Amino acid sequence: MAEWRVIPGGVTAPRGFQAAGIASGLKPSGAPDLALIYSEYDAIGAGVFTNSYVRAACVDYCRQRLEARSNTRAILVNAGQANACTGNQGWVDAVDSAETLATALGLSPEEILLASTGVIGQRLKIDQLKAAIPRLVSNLSNEGSDAVASAIITTDLVTKTVAMETLLHDRPVRIGGVAKGSGMIHPNMATMLAFVTCDATVSPTLWQDMLRRAANRSFNQITVDGDTSTNDSLIALANGQSRTPAITDDGEDAQQLESMLTAVCQHLAKAIARDGEGATCLIDVTVSGAINDAAGNQVARTIAGSSLVKSAVFGHDPNWGRIAAAAGRAGVNFDQNDLRVQLGDMLLMEHGQPLSFDRAAASAYLRTACQGQYLQTDTVAIKVTIGNGTGMGQAWGCDLSYDYVKINAEYTT
Amino acid sequence: MAEWRVIPGGVTAPRGFQAAGIASGLKPSGAPDLALIYSEYDAIGAGVFTNSYVRAACVDYCRQRLEARSNTRAILVNAGQANACTGNQGWVDAVDSAETLATALGLSPEEILLASTGVIGQRLKIDQLKAAIPRLVSNLSNEGSDAVASAIITTDLVTKTVAMETLLHDRPVRIGGVAKGSGMIHPNMATMLAFVTCDATVSPTLWQDMLRRAANRSFNQITVDGDTSTNDSLIALANGQSRTPAITDDGEDAQQLESMLTAVCQHLAKAIARDGEGATCLIDVTVSGAINDAAGNQVARTIAGSSLVKSAVFGHDPNWGRIAAAAGRAGVNFDQNDLRVQLGDMLLMEHGQPLSFDRAAASAYLRTACQGQYLQTDTVAIKVTIGNGTGMGQAWGCDLSYDYVKINAEYTT
Repeated sequence: MAEWRVIPGGVTAPRGFQAAGIASGLKPSGAPDLALIYSEYDAIGAGVFTNSYVRAACVDYCRQRLEARSNTRAILVNAGQANACTGNQGWVDAVDSAETLATALGLSPEEILLASTGVIGQRLKIDQLKAAIPRLVSNLSNEGSDAVASAIITTDLVTKTVAMETLLHDRPVRIGGVAKGSGMIHPNMATMLAFVTCDATVSPTLWQDMLRRAANRSFNQITVDGDTSTNDSLIALANGQSRTPAITDDGEDAQQLESMLTAVCQHLAKAIARDGEGATCLIDVTVSGAINDAAGNQVARTIAGSSLVKSAVFGHDPNWGRIAAAAGRAGVNFDQNDLRVQLGDMLLMEHGQPLSFDRAAASAYLRTACQGQYLQTDTVAIKVTIGNGTGMGQAWGCDLSYDYVKINAEYTT
Repeated sequence: MAEWRVIPGGVTAPRGFQAAGIASGLKPSGAPDLALIYSEYDAIGAGVFTNSYVRAACVDYCRQRLEARSNTRAILVNAGQANACTGNQGWVDAVDSAETLATALGLSPEEILLASTGVIGQRLKIDQLKAAIPRLVSNLSNEGSDAVASAIITTDLVTKTVAMETLLHDRPVRIGGVAKGSGMIHPNMATMLAFVTCDATVSPTLWQDMLRRAANRSFNQITVDGDTSTNDSLIALANGQSRTPAITDDGEDAQQLESMLTAVCQHLAKAIARDGEGATCLIDVTVSGAINDAAGNQVARTIAGSSLVKSAVFGHDPNWGRIAAAAGRAGVNFDQNDLRVQLGDMLLMEHGQPLSFDRAAASAYLRTACQGQYLQTDTVAIKVTIGNGTGMGQAWGCDLSYDYVKINAEYTT
């Protein structure tokens, strides 16, 4: 039975990890913009990256590095320039930054992974970046997680951090994470980034498989505006410093670790959806009765991403018709007579037809959520049943407000 | 060589068609809400309908009728109640309305097709509808197309009509069409509907194939908000009254007819995109250099549907980065170094990297389009090249404005 508790410390909560974040002059604002996550011991790296065919140099760099070998010691992250649409020069800059950091840490460049976020089409300010690396390295500490969380954000309104702990064979195992993102691509400011650290001992293939499954149940189930970025990256390191038995197959230990990894990723993913551009609330969609989980997830994602559902929530309109219509167009076959829609605890629709319900109460439920931003009450729960299957799905989104259009229209380059 | 000219007359421009539209009390506003398109002679019917698994009764009704036999004499359309999410009663009402019309026209119910638009979850006001049918039939005339165009709209700001004529073996052949739609699903007001009439003689299978291909190059390439409705229907009748030779195979005549059918459908589809909720302009995306047309169409559709591209246009921001990112995430493989982006006549990006261009001029181009609504100048042309292939794609959308959110959030049921 998977059990865990939330603990402080973010990415430095697991043993053997240090972190740092500083201002290096990459952001015009002078805010922190360079971050480093460092494992004191050799770690297994895994990654999930954007599927876009227009990709930043750092994404190609990480994919190549991880295909060649999983051993990883550090992740260098910059905010300010996305280093996407920068051609061959972007690649040269990426390699240059990794080599400079490797020298400063006494490592091989192959042990470094990279991530960037910021303006697309702009080269890294490579001179400032390289000049700042000695200071970045000297700032490494076991309490550096918050500095990382602050240095990787761009238009985010809040930082996103979590850490959790479970017991494996009576010894504590920890997973920590930080993330950034608010629009999938903000006004030229790219990206969702997430970094996870873990002190379990786990085989490289299994760690990569776990991470991909966790991503599919978290980051791949959130939607702010449907736009995938050029730089989306989720990177996870596991360094074995918990001194728990090595996890090499899909047994109980693996399930327990994966459950906690999924919980960490879901916490960060929900924090990104909640911080969606212009959002006033989090929309939490649960689908049950599907043929399988993939079908359930697809329906949940379609509802959470529907512009009409999102603007109805912003308008406090308990519009079951838009929820039903979004479910129907998700590409998942179901009998419309089985459709059931619930908002919070209120049943709006059953057997494919609307019920008479207390519209004032349903609207008040939405109003309360939209006024509770970043509070526990800011969540709109939509529960949909599409049949009698055992498949479930869950997805998260945010409402569509005037401010979304304002943020995205009024940023004129 | 396919050539045609635009002519007046809408759906009654082809020979042997009559039409009528009246107010029957289905809309609370008292506006026209019941329409009839009638062929004086036996016609071949074809249809393309919503893929949604939550469908109106009229969609299931038409599918069944057309599967059983293509012969069709009339299309009855109501606006006011969508007759979707109405269970078995919805089906009973649909059959009842077809039978009533068949009696009034002296036809068999199997010769009638149906379409509905309006509030989801509401039954047809069947008594008012049936009571109005004699008056509807007595209003049939060869000049009734505009009355149909007005009676089928809901939240549309303008009616949408077109007719075209070509010569086959020196005899005129005509295709006419009307359509409605502005959001894919407006605040509970469903739907895109389009009706096409034609006086060519064409075999049923070929006519259905032509219609599906034309839909794929027109209505399936427009996007207002990505939401497909429960009632989307495109129905086309061909009655042979042009007295031109029967078209039974994919020869030159068929190509000429299909070219004009596609042009009629594209005209109506663009009119819907241009009338998108809150839209101030039409976005016309052309993609070239794709492996095949399907790939080109997919990239074009993704760009036209990107919330970030749409809000950039509304903000007069020549944001090539969002266009590039949308192209990249379309699920079509291409080398990002081949990417080229043009706005109007201005080249913004080449070889996957931004160029220095006149931002003021590019922004002015967008401003002019957004201020020219319903004028010839209201079109933003985005041209994207993704490689050296011969595949092309085209898609149409509209900008994302404050008014979209206003229209969709402030309609509280």
